[in-house]
Amino acid sequence: MAKITSVSPLAPAAFPELPVIQGVRFATIAAGVRYQGRTDVMLAQLDPGTAIAGAYTRSATRSAPVLDCQAKTGGAADQGAAILVNSGNSNAFTGKGGVAAVKAIAEATAKACGVPESRVFTSSTGVIGEPLPFERITAQLDTLASRLDAGGIAAAAKAIMTTDTFPKGAQASVVVGGKTVKIAGIAKGSGMIAPDMATMLVYIFTDAKIAQSELQSIVSAHNDVTFNCITVDSDTSTSDSLIVAATGASGADVSGNAEFSDALHAVMLDLAHQVVRDGEGATKFVEIAITGAANEADARTHAMSIANSPLVKTAIAGSDPNWGRVVMAIGKSGAAADRDLLSIRFGDVLVAENGWVSPAYSEADAAAHMKGQNLRISVDLGLGSGAATVWTCDLTHGYIDINADYRS
Amino acid sequence: MAKITSVSPLAPAAFPELPVIQGVRFATIAAGVRYQGRTDVMLAQLDPGTAIAGAYTRSATRSAPVLDCQAKTGGAADQGAAILVNSGNSNAFTGKGGVAAVKAIAEATAKACGVPESRVFTSSTGVIGEPLPFERITAQLDTLASRLDAGGIAAAAKAIMTTDTFPKGAQASVVVGGKTVKIAGIAKGSGMIAPDMATMLVYIFTDAKIAQSELQSIVSAHNDVTFNCITVDSDTSTSDSLIVAATGASGADVSGNAEFSDALHAVMLDLAHQVVRDGEGATKFVEIAITGAANEADARTHAMSIANSPLVKTAIAGSDPNWGRVVMAIGKSGAAADRDLLSIRFGDVLVAENGWVSPAYSEADAAAHMKGQNLRISVDLGLGSGAATVWTCDLTHGYIDINADYRS
Repeated sequence: MAKITSVSPLAPAAFPELPVIQGVRFATIAAGVRYQGRTDVMLAQLDPGTAIAGAYTRSATRSAPVLDCQAKTGGAADQGAAILVNSGNSNAFTGKGGVAAVKAIAEATAKACGVPESRVFTSSTGVIGEPLPFERITAQLDTLASRLDAGGIAAAAKAIMTTDTFPKGAQASVVVGGKTVKIAGIAKGSGMIAPDMATMLVYIFTDAKIAQSELQSIVSAHNDVTFNCITVDSDTSTSDSLIVAATGASGADVSGNAEFSDALHAVMLDLAHQVVRDGEGATKFVEIAITGAANEADARTHAMSIANSPLVKTAIAGSDPNWGRVVMAIGKSGAAADRDLLSIRFGDVLVAENGWVSPAYSEADAAAHMKGQNLRISVDLGLGSGAATVWTCDLTHGYIDINADYRS
Repeated sequence: MAKITSVSPLAPAAFPELPVIQGVRFATIAAGVRYQGRTDVMLAQLDPGTAIAGAYTRSATRSAPVLDCQAKTGGAADQGAAILVNSGNSNAFTGKGGVAAVKAIAEATAKACGVPESRVFTSSTGVIGEPLPFERITAQLDTLASRLDAGGIAAAAKAIMTTDTFPKGAQASVVVGGKTVKIAGIAKGSGMIAPDMATMLVYIFTDAKIAQSELQSIVSAHNDVTFNCITVDSDTSTSDSLIVAATGASGADVSGNAEFSDALHAVMLDLAHQVVRDGEGATKFVEIAITGAANEADARTHAMSIANSPLVKTAIAGSDPNWGRVVMAIGKSGAAADRDLLSIRFGDVLVAENGWVSPAYSEADAAAHMKGQNLRISVDLGLGSGAATVWTCDLTHGYIDINADYRS
C-alpha cells in the first residue's frame, strides 16, 4: 500500500509567516537518510546566551537521542548551542550503535558550529530499530553550517516531516518593557501521538531574555495542558521531544511576565492542535471537555478515555452522535463517575442528563453538529470541580491505509 | 453504511455439537425488540438445586440488568432459576425506566417459569441509551415457557447475537467418581470487548454438583485468565456478564476436583477465543505472550498495551513484522522495562534481543509468520518471572466499516 500523500482536510490554509528570531539561524539539506528527493536534516544554530528548556517522552524504551537531550537540558546559556534533527530514521531501539550514532552526530555538529558537544541537541524521527546511517548526516555538516540563514525556519519545518501531510508552524509576539518579543515554533507529528508526550518533535524559538530555570518551569507547565493533552491513536513515540530556545537577543527581560507566558502557551497550543489536525487519516478535529469530575486527574482520565476509544472515534468518523459510546468510555476509564449524574453535550446540543437521554434532545441537531469538521464533546460528571480538555481526531479508513503497511 | 454480515474468516468451521445438560431447558423467540426476522430473546430455565455463579463488568456506567444480576448472584440453590436474555437493546444508560424494565421482565419470567423473582437473571445487549421496549418481551414469556426444550442451546446461541458473525459454543466432559459430568457454554460478543470483562455475554451450563461458593471461586479465577485476557478494541461494554449454572443433575460431586475445574477453564478459554475470532473486522487471531516481567501485573500491563495498540494492530493487519511498534507499546505501558534486555519473537522467529535487532533475524521468516491467520508475538522482559498471555485481533478496514455508522 502506498504512503498517503494528500494533505489533511483539517490542515490550515497555509503555513504561517514566521518572524525571524534574532540569535538563531537554520539550514536544511537532503542527506538521503531514508527518503530520496526531499530535505531530511535540519540544523539550528543558537547564539551564546541562549537558554534551552525541554520536555521529553517518558517511554521506557525511548531513543538514544532523547536520553542524550535529557542529560544535556538545563545547562548554562553562556555558550552557543545547536539543534540537529533528521527524519526518516528514529535511531530508537538501536542498541549501543544508536548511542555511538548520537555521539558521532553531536561531535560533528559541535565542530561545524563551533559549540561545545554538551550544547548539541539531536533528534531523530522515523523508522524504529534500524541502524541510523549517521555518516550520511555527518558528511553534510560543513555544508549545513555554510548555509545557515536566519530566515530558514519554514524550510526547517519541512525537513523534519515524516508521515506529516503539512508542515506545522506558529508564532506570537508581545511587547515587554517597550521591546517586542517574538516567538516562532515548528512541529512534526501525525501518528504515534499520545501523552508523555503528545508531540513527536517541536522546536520553539524566542528572542526573549529569561533564565533557563524559569523557562523550564513555564515550558513544563504549558506542556502539561497542550502537548500532553492531545492524542491521535493512544500510541506514544519513543522519540517525542520539545525544545524551547530563548536567545535573549531582543534584550527584553520576560521574567515573571504573564503576557510572554501566555504567548508561549498560545504557540504551543496552536502547534499541538496542528499535530492533531494532521492525525493519520483524520477528517475531524475534536475537543473533549470534561467538567464536574471529582478532581483534575479524574477529569483527564475520563477525557483521554473518550478521546482514545476506537468506538467513539469511529462514531465521529461516521458523523454519528453516538453518545452511548461516550457513556461506555466514561464507564471504562476507572475514574469516578455516577451514571445518573452525567450530562453530555455534542456542541451546544444537550444530549443526555440524569442518567438518560434529555427530554429536549434532538438527534437532528446533534447529527448536524457531528457533520462538521470541528467538533466538541463535553461531559459534566456532576461530582466536583475537576476539569480537563483534550483534543483528538476521528479514526478512519485513512488511518488503516497509512498504518497497515507503512513501516514507521 | 450497511451492517457487515459476512462471517468472520477466523470463525470455526461449524457450531459444535453441544451436549444436553440435564436440569436446564431453553427457548427462543423473535420478539422484535429491535431486529426483525430473527430470534432476539432466549430463556433458560434451571431446575431446583442449581448453583449459579457470575462475573460482571466493572464499568462505572454498567447497565440496570447487570446491577440486578450482581445483587442476585450467590443465592441458595434450593429453588429453580431462570435466565432471560434479549439482544438488540442493552437497557444501559436508561435511567429509572431501565430499572423498571428489568423488574417487569424479571417478574414476568418468574411467573411464567414458576421461580422466585430473586432467581431470575436478565441480560440485555445492543444499543445503549434507548428505552427497552420490555413489553415486547414480557408479552412472549408464556409462549417461551411453553417451548422450553433441553436441546435448545444452539438456538439460544443465535438469539443472543448482535454484531456477531457466528454463534459461539463450546463443550467438555469429564468423568468424576464413575459419572460423566458435561459442560456446555454459549457466548456472544464481537466489538466493545476488553477486560473488566472481556466477554459481552456468556452462559455456561453443567450438570456437575457443586456448592455455589466453590463454583464462584473457580469461575472468578478462570475468568481472570480467559475473558479478562482478551481484547478487540480496548473498549468495555456496560453489559458484560458471565453466568455459570451447575444443575447437579449428574449426581457427580466435583468439589475439589481438578479435572472438572480444568474442563470448565477449557470451555471458558474456547469461548473467549471465539469472541476474539469474531472481533469486528478481524482477519488475524493473535496471542501476545509476555515472560520475564518484574511481576505478573506488569506482564499483563505490557501484554495489554501491545494488544490494544492501534499501530501494532494495523501492522498485524498488513502482515508487517513491525517489531518497532512492539517496542513502542512496551515503552508506553507504564510497567517496568529495560530497553536493552528485551527479546521479541514473532512466532518462533527471534526478532530482537539485547536492545537491537537479532543478528540472526530474517525479515522473510518473520513476514512469513505474519502472513498466517494465527499469530504469536512473544516478549521476554529479562527482568523477573512475571508472565501473562492475552489474545487479540488485528485492526482493519472492516472495523471502521462496522463502527463508523452502526449504532451499537
